[in-house]
Amino acid sequence: MDKIKSVKVSKDMKVSMLVENLKEAGFGARKIGIASEIMKKMFFGDECGIFLGIAGAMVPAGMKDIILDMIKSGKINVLVITGANLTHDLVEALGEFHYHCDSWDDQEFHEKGFDRMYNVLMKNEVYEKIEKFFEENWQRFHESKNITGFLKKIGELLPEGNNSILRVCYEKNIPIFCPGISDSGIGLMVWGRLASGKKLNIDVFDDLKEIIDITWTSKKKGVIYVGGGTSKNFIQQALQFSEGADYGIQITTDRPEFGGSSGAPLEEGISWGKLKTSAKKEEDFVDIFCDATIALPLLWAAVKK
Amino acid sequence: MDKIKSVKVSKDMKVSMLVENLKEAGFGARKIGIASEIMKKMFFGDECGIFLGIAGAMVPAGMKDIILDMIKSGKINVLVITGANLTHDLVEALGEFHYHCDSWDDQEFHEKGFDRMYNVLMKNEVYEKIEKFFEENWQRFHESKNITGFLKKIGELLPEGNNSILRVCYEKNIPIFCPGISDSGIGLMVWGRLASGKKLNIDVFDDLKEIIDITWTSKKKGVIYVGGGTSKNFIQQALQFSEGADYGIQITTDRPEFGGSSGAPLEEGISWGKLKTSAKKEEDFVDIFCDATIALPLLWAAVKK
Amino acid sequence: MDKIKSVKVSKDMKVSMLVENLKEAGFGARKIGIASEIMKKMFFGDECGIFLGIAGAMVPAGMKDIILDMIKSGKINVLVITGANLTHDLVEALGEFHYHCDSWDDQEFHEKGFDRMYNVLMKNEVYEKIEKFFEENWQRFHESKNITGFLKKIGELLPEGNNSILRVCYEKNIPIFCPGISDSGIGLMVWGRLASGKKLNIDVFDDLKEIIDITWTSKKKGVIYVGGGTSKNFIQQALQFSEGADYGIQITTDRPEFGGSSGAPLEEGISWGKLKTSAKKEEDFVDIFCDATIALPLLWAAVKK
Amino acid sequence: MDKIKSVKVSKDMKVSMLVENLKEAGFGARKIGIASEIMKKMFFGDECGIFLGIAGAMVPAGMKDIILDMIKSGKINVLVITGANLTHDLVEALGEFHYHCDSWDDQEFHEKGFDRMYNVLMKNEVYEKIEKFFEENWQRFHESKNITGFLKKIGELLPEGNNSILRVCYEKNIPIFCPGISDSGIGLMVWGRLASGKKLNIDVFDDLKEIIDITWTSKKKGVIYVGGGTSKNFIQQALQFSEGADYGIQITTDRPEFGGSSGAPLEEGISWGKLKTSAKKEEDFVDIFCDATIALPLLWAAVKK
Repeated sequence: MDKIKSVKVSKDMKVSMLVENLKEAGFGARKIGIASEIMKKMFFGDECGIFLGIAGAMVPAGMKDIILDMIKSGKINVLVITGANLTHDLVEALGEFHYHCDSWDDQEFHEKGFDRMYNVLMKNEVYEKIEKFFEENWQRFHESKNITGFLKKIGELLPEGNNSILRVCYEKNIPIFCPGISDSGIGLMVWGRLASGKKLNIDVFDDLKEIIDITWTSKKKGVIYVGGGTSKNFIQQALQFSEGADYGIQITTDRPEFGGSSGAPLEEGISWGKLKTSAKKEEDFVDIFCDATIALPLLWAAVKK
Repeated sequence: MDKIKSVKVSKDMKVSMLVENLKEAGFGARKIGIASEIMKKMFFGDECGIFLGIAGAMVPAGMKDIILDMIKSGKINVLVITGANLTHDLVEALGEFHYHCDSWDDQEFHEKGFDRMYNVLMKNEVYEKIEKFFEENWQRFHESKNITGFLKKIGELLPEGNNSILRVCYEKNIPIFCPGISDSGIGLMVWGRLASGKKLNIDVFDDLKEIIDITWTSKKKGVIYVGGGTSKNFIQQALQFSEGADYGIQITTDRPEFGGSSGAPLEEGISWGKLKTSAKKEEDFVDIFCDATIALPLLWAAVKK
Repeated sequence: MDKIKSVKVSKDMKVSMLVENLKEAGFGARKIGIASEIMKKMFFGDECGIFLGIAGAMVPAGMKDIILDMIKSGKINVLVITGANLTHDLVEALGEFHYHCDSWDDQEFHEKGFDRMYNVLMKNEVYEKIEKFFEENWQRFHESKNITGFLKKIGELLPEGNNSILRVCYEKNIPIFCPGISDSGIGLMVWGRLASGKKLNIDVFDDLKEIIDITWTSKKKGVIYVGGGTSKNFIQQALQFSEGADYGIQITTDRPEFGGSSGAPLEEGISWGKLKTSAKKEEDFVDIFCDATIALPLLWAAVKK
Repeated sequence: MDKIKSVKVSKDMKVSMLVENLKEAGFGARKIGIASEIMKKMFFGDECGIFLGIAGAMVPAGMKDIILDMIKSGKINVLVITGANLTHDLVEALGEFHYHCDSWDDQEFHEKGFDRMYNVLMKNEVYEKIEKFFEENWQRFHESKNITGFLKKIGELLPEGNNSILRVCYEKNIPIFCPGISDSGIGLMVWGRLASGKKLNIDVFDDLKEIIDITWTSKKKGVIYVGGGTSKNFIQQALQFSEGADYGIQITTDRPEFGGSSGAPLEEGISWGKLKTSAKKEEDFVDIFCDATIALPLLWAAVKK
């Protein structure tokens, strides 16, 4: 049995050193430390492909560059992400911003045209830019037959070098899956065109072939879930058809007892075949119960090379 | 200022009386009481159409008949629900079951072919029945052009009087929206057919027209969110294009500070135009922080006529 | 393996019937059902003494009469409760009230003399009545040598038949333990007298003898924890010296992974000897993850005879 | 309005730089950044005295050295801490340890003599060392008349330079308050002596004079709450008698809506007079919703000089 070591902190300490220290502590600190070790196995070990699932408004909250870092590592097999995050990514890709708000009056925001996500604001007028983007490029989307293709097309239409998830995934040829794409600002902008009589035909089921195929391409598979929802579940269900994941990290604030997928611990996935029966708790997979905007930067700053 | 009254409980007390008492108490008890009043305005007031969003594994957890009760009330304009719930609904519609498990060994469950959702189990072999259902009826789905149509078709194919959400919505002509349908067992069964070379073409964006149209049909609009995710958000975004909801009840265990849609209080929707600026907190809308399998039966047993 | 049964709700349904139904469902609903069965074993089984721990502002929130019901059952061996709850109990015992507030402006409340506990208010001026109570009765407290005795004396000084926890426990001769009594409005009122030069000598450790003695008096022991904190822990540590509890119900909104006592599941107590190794999960003990102002009335209305 | 900036992470990044970046992000990340600024005002600004409240098993979880760092800064006016933490501090002071456990079988731990706190273990036999400590030094405690004095005496009896909270506070002459001291292993060891007929007389209310006096000694007052419970509340109630705190940081995983003190946001304290009405949200005070074993090391490593 290993002793707990009290975390020692020093001025000018590096994040990597802090996280190493946390591994020697208890409760959630230890899980951060363990997750950093598992993350290293995923990103720097041989032959591991990563399935990255992102839910929650991570782009508005300033997590975009960390996600981009991961994508640029060349180790991400697939990105599954919510339509909301892609909408906010497109908002920023088109030159718009998100803003801080440390206190709020929602009626006032409504009058002034701001949309609130807890302590983050977006101007309602950003929709005009997205609308213009789709209006001007509408014909180009006829080449897309499924959601992945549709999202790849958006990336293709953005300028080269644009610092966005949509563009970087296009340039790196990493497929973006977004099963609930219609549930987003992007969906609404498409609706606008459809409502005006324009046509588009994007199939909802077609992507399943691609993601399930990809589960067979890596010798080892790691999953990283930031939040739950469809982003997690779409990866989980695809893994059922392979032999399950070898490694896993889940950052969630939801909990098991209410029975939803977002709060289900990775271990539960063993029963379904989503995680290998050989995967060891706190060694190959770990659940972190923490605000992802805190845990993810901390982990990535400790692991990034 | 009104006084708190201590909750008094008696043998053989009716649920409706208990909930009336809870309204006089504080903390979450009061919110249950307030929600029951708002629910009465929605279900029994004039000219209110209800937008019901269901996330979390409510069907496996035994909430199906309450959802069916609501649907049969004739007051539900639309149901937005996760693909997982529809899969479990279909599982039961085809004669299979869910089971209790009060303790667990996920490796053992995996070997024995059980899939676990916290303290609920499903036999993995149920997929065979769903597969057979789709295999046998595959041609019929060619008539469906969008997700709503696809789900309506499933309902049509089930036997008359079948006690399932899919069937009852079909019989009552209530549209079911499920933006993330591919993220579910139903999606996987469709994938199986596609993988074997069969064809299907269900459009992902087309449904937006219908749900946004419906936001204009009721004089008053009420939203009931059980959990968050796409089920909540798909309704919320549709409401942005009408004048917003008049009434709202949200049952969630998520919290605002982590910034996700599932934890966002209804009030935040005022900034977006999803809730009317005239809607009054704790009078027209209320957020309940509780396991939905506790709060929903308690509320419905108090409100049902 | 037992099948999940969908919860069926009917107009005029009794709470007891609803809770029986919940037992057949999953997630938290099942736990409510299980808890009602365990509660029946505690209250109506032979030879079981109950250790009731109450934390959180249950009295201001209107849970007083349910606690009184339990006390009057004659089955409660000891009550361990926070000083805050006892202060609020005394406030009501002296004729003051708590009030609803469904929205808030804390600066305004401060100016107007209201103290807020989420959606419950108390007038700051109630302290004058408590101060007067202690001022007038100060001499009487010299007879008290420990906290239990001090609290019993308060009960003795209240009018016969007064509907308060302090009085009813006095009349029923049930000891009230409150290890952190100085951390409360009652503590502050005592401080006021001490600051003016008056004397009192209440020993802090003396009560341990009595509560540990009582753990030996019942053939069977059940624990009911509403919230955690010192109220739970003071019972837990006393049980370590007996053979541990036979039955347990814990209602908490805290969770295990953060390592605090309030979130620790009852099962963890087996390692410490606080719960018997023979106690069976979901049969003899259960953890309910729910706002106690919802779960406690629901349970008690189902169990009360 | 300030723009959100995406967090940028680099290899070998310092914690202080990461936390500066987090301040530019949203959700909880921003709160960490804000808290680091407030913490700097408390520790390095002029004339601010800090009231530090510690709940949850922070010592077993390896947070002791961070707490010691803070104490040694010379800026801590008072430490209010749970009896459990002091017991674990004494355990380590006497040469014993805490251990990791990443999976568990509580029945096995019970047989082998290990007590579990989530993923941290303690040997049951440590109690023998504490017992011996009190047995051998019993006479010395007769000099102590209140809890603060009793705890100071423990510190005095430990060897010079001992790396423990009890000893360092003694050496630095910082009073430790622990209203619920009897609710702890230390309490149990005292009970052992009392049960064998030995005498001790430690008054429960006497400490209130000292802590309330101290609220008057600093020109400015800052509060830091790690967890809630009596540790937070004992400081909060003392502040009511001064003009309230100027600065505040609360790290908790509890939430407001259930009405307990541990989840109450600092802002609620304005109504009570515990926080100054002039204190500005997200500038002078902030609530962090995070596992303290993650947030506290992150903050302290960013702030420490």
